[in-house]
Amino acid sequence: MWKGRFEEEPALMVQQFTQSLDLDWRMAEHDIRGSIAHVRMLAKVGLLQEQEAEKIEEGLRRVRDEIAEGRFVPSEALEDVHMNVESRLTELEPLGAKLHTARSRNDQTATTVRLFLRDRLIALELSLLTLLEVLLNRAEAQLRVIVSGYTHLQQAQPISMGHYWMAWFEAFARDCDRLNFALSATNECPLGAGALAGSTLPIDRQITSELLGFDCPTRNSLDTVGQRDYMADVHHFASMLALHTSRLAEDLIIWSSQEFGWLKLPDSFCTGSSMMPQKKNPDVLELIRGKTGQVLGHFMDLLITLKGLPMTYDRDLQEDKRGLWASLDTVEAILTVLSPMLTRTEVDAEAARAGLEKGFALATDVAEHLVLKGVPFRDAHWKVGQLVKYCLHQDKYLKDLSLDEWRELIPESGPEVLELLSLEASVERRNTYGGTGFEAVKLQITEGRERLARMKLSLEKRRKKWDKSHF
Amino acid sequence: MWKGRFEEEPALMVQQFTQSLDLDWRMAEHDIRGSIAHVRMLAKVGLLQEQEAEKIEEGLRRVRDEIAEGRFVPSEALEDVHMNVESRLTELEPLGAKLHTARSRNDQTATTVRLFLRDRLIALELSLLTLLEVLLNRAEAQLRVIVSGYTHLQQAQPISMGHYWMAWFEAFARDCDRLNFALSATNECPLGAGALAGSTLPIDRQITSELLGFDCPTRNSLDTVGQRDYMADVHHFASMLALHTSRLAEDLIIWSSQEFGWLKLPDSFCTGSSMMPQKKNPDVLELIRGKTGQVLGHFMDLLITLKGLPMTYDRDLQEDKRGLWASLDTVEAILTVLSPMLTRTEVDAEAARAGLEKGFALATDVAEHLVLKGVPFRDAHWKVGQLVKYCLHQDKYLKDLSLDEWRELIPESGPEVLELLSLEASVERRNTYGGTGFEAVKLQITEGRERLARMKLSLEKRRKKWDKSHF
Amino acid sequence: MWKGRFEEEPALMVQQFTQSLDLDWRMAEHDIRGSIAHVRMLAKVGLLQEQEAEKIEEGLRRVRDEIAEGRFVPSEALEDVHMNVESRLTELEPLGAKLHTARSRNDQTATTVRLFLRDRLIALELSLLTLLEVLLNRAEAQLRVIVSGYTHLQQAQPISMGHYWMAWFEAFARDCDRLNFALSATNECPLGAGALAGSTLPIDRQITSELLGFDCPTRNSLDTVGQRDYMADVHHFASMLALHTSRLAEDLIIWSSQEFGWLKLPDSFCTGSSMMPQKKNPDVLELIRGKTGQVLGHFMDLLITLKGLPMTYDRDLQEDKRGLWASLDTVEAILTVLSPMLTRTEVDAEAARAGLEKGFALATDVAEHLVLKGVPFRDAHWKVGQLVKYCLHQDKYLKDLSLDEWRELIPESGPEVLELLSLEASVERRNTYGGTGFEAVKLQITEGRERLARMKLSLEKRRKKWDKSHF
Amino acid sequence: MWKGRFEEEPALMVQQFTQSLDLDWRMAEHDIRGSIAHVRMLAKVGLLQEQEAEKIEEGLRRVRDEIAEGRFVPSEALEDVHMNVESRLTELEPLGAKLHTARSRNDQTATTVRLFLRDRLIALELSLLTLLEVLLNRAEAQLRVIVSGYTHLQQAQPISMGHYWMAWFEAFARDCDRLNFALSATNECPLGAGALAGSTLPIDRQITSELLGFDCPTRNSLDTVGQRDYMADVHHFASMLALHTSRLAEDLIIWSSQEFGWLKLPDSFCTGSSMMPQKKNPDVLELIRGKTGQVLGHFMDLLITLKGLPMTYDRDLQEDKRGLWASLDTVEAILTVLSPMLTRTEVDAEAARAGLEKGFALATDVAEHLVLKGVPFRDAHWKVGQLVKYCLHQDKYLKDLSLDEWRELIPESGPEVLELLSLEASVERRNTYGGTGFEAVKLQITEGRERLARMKLSLEKRRKKWDKSHF
Repeated sequence: MWKGRFEEEPALMVQQFTQSLDLDWRMAEHDIRGSIAHVRMLAKVGLLQEQEAEKIEEGLRRVRDEIAEGRFVPSEALEDVHMNVESRLTELEPLGAKLHTARSRNDQTATTVRLFLRDRLIALELSLLTLLEVLLNRAEAQLRVIVSGYTHLQQAQPISMGHYWMAWFEAFARDCDRLNFALSATNECPLGAGALAGSTLPIDRQITSELLGFDCPTRNSLDTVGQRDYMADVHHFASMLALHTSRLAEDLIIWSSQEFGWLKLPDSFCTGSSMMPQKKNPDVLELIRGKTGQVLGHFMDLLITLKGLPMTYDRDLQEDKRGLWASLDTVEAILTVLSPMLTRTEVDAEAARAGLEKGFALATDVAEHLVLKGVPFRDAHWKVGQLVKYCLHQDKYLKDLSLDEWRELIPESGPEVLELLSLEASVERRNTYGGTGFEAVKLQITEGRERLARMKLSLEKRRKKWDKSHF
Repeated sequence: MWKGRFEEEPALMVQQFTQSLDLDWRMAEHDIRGSIAHVRMLAKVGLLQEQEAEKIEEGLRRVRDEIAEGRFVPSEALEDVHMNVESRLTELEPLGAKLHTARSRNDQTATTVRLFLRDRLIALELSLLTLLEVLLNRAEAQLRVIVSGYTHLQQAQPISMGHYWMAWFEAFARDCDRLNFALSATNECPLGAGALAGSTLPIDRQITSELLGFDCPTRNSLDTVGQRDYMADVHHFASMLALHTSRLAEDLIIWSSQEFGWLKLPDSFCTGSSMMPQKKNPDVLELIRGKTGQVLGHFMDLLITLKGLPMTYDRDLQEDKRGLWASLDTVEAILTVLSPMLTRTEVDAEAARAGLEKGFALATDVAEHLVLKGVPFRDAHWKVGQLVKYCLHQDKYLKDLSLDEWRELIPESGPEVLELLSLEASVERRNTYGGTGFEAVKLQITEGRERLARMKLSLEKRRKKWDKSHF
Repeated sequence: MWKGRFEEEPALMVQQFTQSLDLDWRMAEHDIRGSIAHVRMLAKVGLLQEQEAEKIEEGLRRVRDEIAEGRFVPSEALEDVHMNVESRLTELEPLGAKLHTARSRNDQTATTVRLFLRDRLIALELSLLTLLEVLLNRAEAQLRVIVSGYTHLQQAQPISMGHYWMAWFEAFARDCDRLNFALSATNECPLGAGALAGSTLPIDRQITSELLGFDCPTRNSLDTVGQRDYMADVHHFASMLALHTSRLAEDLIIWSSQEFGWLKLPDSFCTGSSMMPQKKNPDVLELIRGKTGQVLGHFMDLLITLKGLPMTYDRDLQEDKRGLWASLDTVEAILTVLSPMLTRTEVDAEAARAGLEKGFALATDVAEHLVLKGVPFRDAHWKVGQLVKYCLHQDKYLKDLSLDEWRELIPESGPEVLELLSLEASVERRNTYGGTGFEAVKLQITEGRERLARMKLSLEKRRKKWDKSHF
Repeated sequence: MWKGRFEEEPALMVQQFTQSLDLDWRMAEHDIRGSIAHVRMLAKVGLLQEQEAEKIEEGLRRVRDEIAEGRFVPSEALEDVHMNVESRLTELEPLGAKLHTARSRNDQTATTVRLFLRDRLIALELSLLTLLEVLLNRAEAQLRVIVSGYTHLQQAQPISMGHYWMAWFEAFARDCDRLNFALSATNECPLGAGALAGSTLPIDRQITSELLGFDCPTRNSLDTVGQRDYMADVHHFASMLALHTSRLAEDLIIWSSQEFGWLKLPDSFCTGSSMMPQKKNPDVLELIRGKTGQVLGHFMDLLITLKGLPMTYDRDLQEDKRGLWASLDTVEAILTVLSPMLTRTEVDAEAARAGLEKGFALATDVAEHLVLKGVPFRDAHWKVGQLVKYCLHQDKYLKDLSLDEWRELIPESGPEVLELLSLEASVERRNTYGGTGFEAVKLQITEGRERLARMKLSLEKRRKKWDKSHF
């Protein structure tokens, strides 16, 4: 279609090397959507007659139907989805030769991608909200289940398992913010930017922008065809989401080892070994963790591709979609297995308690208790540290100590110290805002439910608006 | 300070390996700021007496003065800025032993870093706004300077140089959005999250949050000490900014080659060769482009560090600052040289025009002109392509063709086609919103000035609010 | 096949999430090859009777034929290529249940991958040697074509175009070294490492290693199933190769711009624009450059996946193949288009010369000439620098200067300086080893042809050896 | 020194932005070494008189002494180490103006870097060989200590702790191979490549190459000044080394948690908590793991910098050293703490055994035992899987089962199955080459000691050769 000035046809290997159908054919629906809006605008400003526009739109719908029904197989010789659709349209309706008026593939591609991306992001947000809901439910169900909290993978302080799930609620809620930032960045209309400099024809970019549900037309045509910032924003979102799931997976893998032994994964989310009959492996979690590298790698790919690239459009950018589609597929797949898996993940509360009782996770409680009795914290910390050392030498735990032993090392100790050593009481006590105390966690859950409701509402609103552009 | 339970001292090499003074000593001022807020809160809730609090605050101010005056050299044996400050405080004022009440290094570090980061980001935003202003000024000054616009580094269509500068205005304005997203993510108060689970003491996190100008206390203590999302958001911002400067640099490097020859860099931003006496090299631009890799590498570093890391705090996170500081320094340095350099970068308008006249950059104008005469765009495109092929064979440019030659290949041509071939007229014609037409670019500049004014205002407001926490 | 201890089946979504057929089905041939060697070994050591072994081998061949003829469609429910093949074998031949004796999927997979990788690398080396041959031919053909050499993209000194092609010969020859390093790392036999700790059965690992053409059995079974270093070595090779092609592409893109204009790309390796009829874009080169990011991203992916992964095998490793296959496909595709493209890429020698004559690329020659006359180099450099500045002020080139002008600024000048200013003579003079002088480049070509011959020989030898394991 | 043609001085901010003293000043010694060889060569070929050469060499030695004694502070105005040294030399000895004859900073820098890098790599190899020795010693000492081997972090089979250490011996020995590959790539002499095209002066590159102990002069001058492959090879080595240490660290961190509890880290390599008195954290290991991201990030940085960079030298390359130095420092620091730490890391053999006895790690032994009795492996695997399921239902371990229970589920069981269940016997049995059997591990140690001896010898030889160029 662009061959007027050329002396020879592209070599076949070149055709294969440069085609992008494997990347853009899936966007055929969105490409046609953009073309319909373009045609309607051309008619409105008088570049097409009403009748012409109707015929072209009619033709585009027929192409869409052919594709939907699998009757139209695209040809690599026509490079990409755009050329394939336009070429088929023109076969069906010769007026199709007028479709590309005041448009270039550069602004057309950018429009198609943004429309497609918008739909993918909305679907992802839905999955993410489901995960948030699962986390709230787990938190509620396991509010009073006490497990060890760790720092440096060493037992630190006892916590409510509900508190743990709410930590992930926070992380994934931030991912929603990133998704929405990327969505806003995506939702501007490139149509009319032309190849790079706009058009000499009297088009109206506001019209196409509105028809397609974009927030506004983009503001500078050079920037429009050359920039891929919105894709980078999507990659940033996907990377952080994948990172979060990798960390969550790591925790659950460790906790479901024989040695930790207090987390129970559902059989149906594990697999066995071809050699070792006894194995029950946390494969799903390992794959979640293992797929993170791909999402990060695809992000890097885009950044590397953009680095030092001259204004405006260079063909390097065609490859922008490869990693992006892969990453979106990956995080979608992760969310698809993660939510139902978490729903069925259980804590063996007794094993968790038993593990904790063999450590010194209540040492901070003792130190803070001494503070309330007037001991400066640094001194209290030192004294309790000495107490722990004594226990290690004696091969005892705190709860094994007699009051005399307590008093020897910590003269400030009264009989109440023996009561300090209850896991429930310890968790109960940490009722600072955001803390692990049962009341504090309950508050987190309540606030979380409210935030989730707001997110759902705003997602619904956006969907409704965009549905209108599904011509 | 944490050695109560230990049998032996850390090996010297361990001390050197684990210290973080090279990373956190620069935050001493912010650490003390956080401590003062903490002390005031402890007094308010009754964990310290008013007098005690005053003495500790007094001591903290003395430590700050000693540091500011270079009288206090931190010791590696005390690991980090936090321990050094607390230790010195306690030397000066024994009540310092009460400072760490209801606080852990985990929430303390996170607070210090966020306060410090806030200041750095504000400074960066200022530099970024300066760059935006420079771009607006260049755009205004070079509005009517015509240069070639390129796609695929091939001459595409003539554009206003002002249009080019406004393209970068768009890109860097988006970087401002990313910066502000990161700033919001940063501006939540970790104090009171404790080691991981909050505190058993009756502290009030709202008070410290307000004193320090944070938007709110963080909502989950486990998440608070273990997450570094806000740092990733800063890296994302810095990476996109660096990417943009690398692309801008690439353009200017190519355009100031002998062969392009239409961009003139100021001598004072270039350097020479030790061997070749004639060289004037665009070193500053090359270094800008070359430093991009570092910013991206540091981003990757953080993502890799976080990947698969168990909840909550692990010592791996200490290293989070190394790459972040380096990236902030780098983008700051880039902005520092870029703005004055652009201010003095000139276009050799005649050379630019001469270059354009040897190409076929007006071919699209001809095709779109035919559309206005009723030729479907695809046919027009093909015909003009044939015309170009004819020219190449005849070794002619479009403007060398006689009307007869025009008519032979494009029967629709009238005498007006000869007038089409003016660069000014071509640019003039592209007055679509966001296009390169002089009026369109003027509108971009006007809207740009308004956006910049709003950005300045909002920055000023934030600064004023945060100045209040400079106790 | 591993389900003896499980209470419930994996969820369908889990099956889809954990399957690896899309990654490993292509290795069916190699999996069977490994199994045949395993079976023969089992017979030799007496763990199978000769007849049993023959029947199993016979069955494996039948499975292979079914696959080759497309008659056997693998099932996702059987997870991977290994389980599919074994399951089908056992359907055909019940003795198949003995195949997995003294073997685990962990060592089996590693073996299959290494066999497959070996074949891919050999094919790639062949393509690489073709490229080296093309470069030698181009160098020979364009030995006396003079173009500008650049540093900082500024004209530096005139060079032989043959010299340029030989520079890439060096780079790609180094890539061959990296490929061979990776190949050696790959060529060790994992079979017999078992799940992680070897086997209690009396197998002989030397036998399988030799049957399969490996250099030796791996030396530590834990390491064997958990390490992927050889994959990282392959990624390193692929990344450097891609980097090299990206830099070569950048050069050619810039040189074929209208402004440089001295490099002529074949039409059949370029494409046009949908909007701008005159465009002939270097798309193939841009895609080569643009695909580099993917190869680097996949490398990062593997490194990230491996980082902090516990010994020994974790399911994360299943994903090791995804990026690796993609990168191998990419560099193979790049080599496939690059070699024929370079063969048809021409220099417009006159345009190149014209470009050079408008610069000061001979300034170093003048300075070094002065050195021969006894002027210290630093002084000579300064004087010639002043001469250039004089020219810029007078709007002249060196060859426009009269002898009097020469003498005014450089008293040491004699009439011979006027003869210095020939491009041919300048190139001719640089006959240091590795330099651009025609003789020096000729020597590079001769040595290059000898190196290539040696590489071909060693590749052939290796292929013959490995062909023996194509049972 | 290059300012002859310039109209104005570089701006101060440009000077700061472009200087590289912070990166290259540490190479002053190596720069001077290269210059001395250059001067000697210039004298040999007659470009300097013997006496001149002696005076310049004498002057260079004086500059070196001034630097060594801290008497010479470099100036940023002179950009880099090369200009500073040459400038000081010329102050001391006016003949210094002849030093830069037939040399450019491009080949000079490349030479200096390679000389410096060679020394750093040799030092690193020494540290690496020390680590290998430590591992051999640990393996020998803990040959008969039995711990659990894990796959998927689930107990898999009992292994010898010596086997574990030998797995790391393999990995780090491969790192030695990579180091040596990089060292070979580094050890070629750039001197004489000039700015890019060689020199018109009759220099002899062979002489300088030999004087400096390089293997040969580089073969193409364009490639020489523009390529940084050897740096990428060093980064690849450093990345793999860091990766390996990160995985080792992860293992040790997990095993020294309270829950696993069978690995004992020395107190002096751990630190405590500022809040929790009981904590003993594996900080050194966490920092090792955490620093890996930096090494990978710096690798990426170089790759990104090189991607799409035009031939030949561009100033972007100045920054090549920043990440490389950082990575070398990091891996050196890691090796410095890792070796002594491992030396003092102990296994609590009883705890390890206790952990194993609560699992089913001997299940494979049972299955393979059945194979020896004629049961096809797949059937054996299924039966043992059923046995494990039975145990889980009955809350028993294998060793708790009576012979009757055995026979019920596995009719082939004889009384000998009860003897199978010894950890020692299980390990003992896996004497396949590379396996965990005590004899197999002993053999690994013996072979390892031989390999180490060879490595030491070859390192020593290289050092001696290179010492000769320490003029």
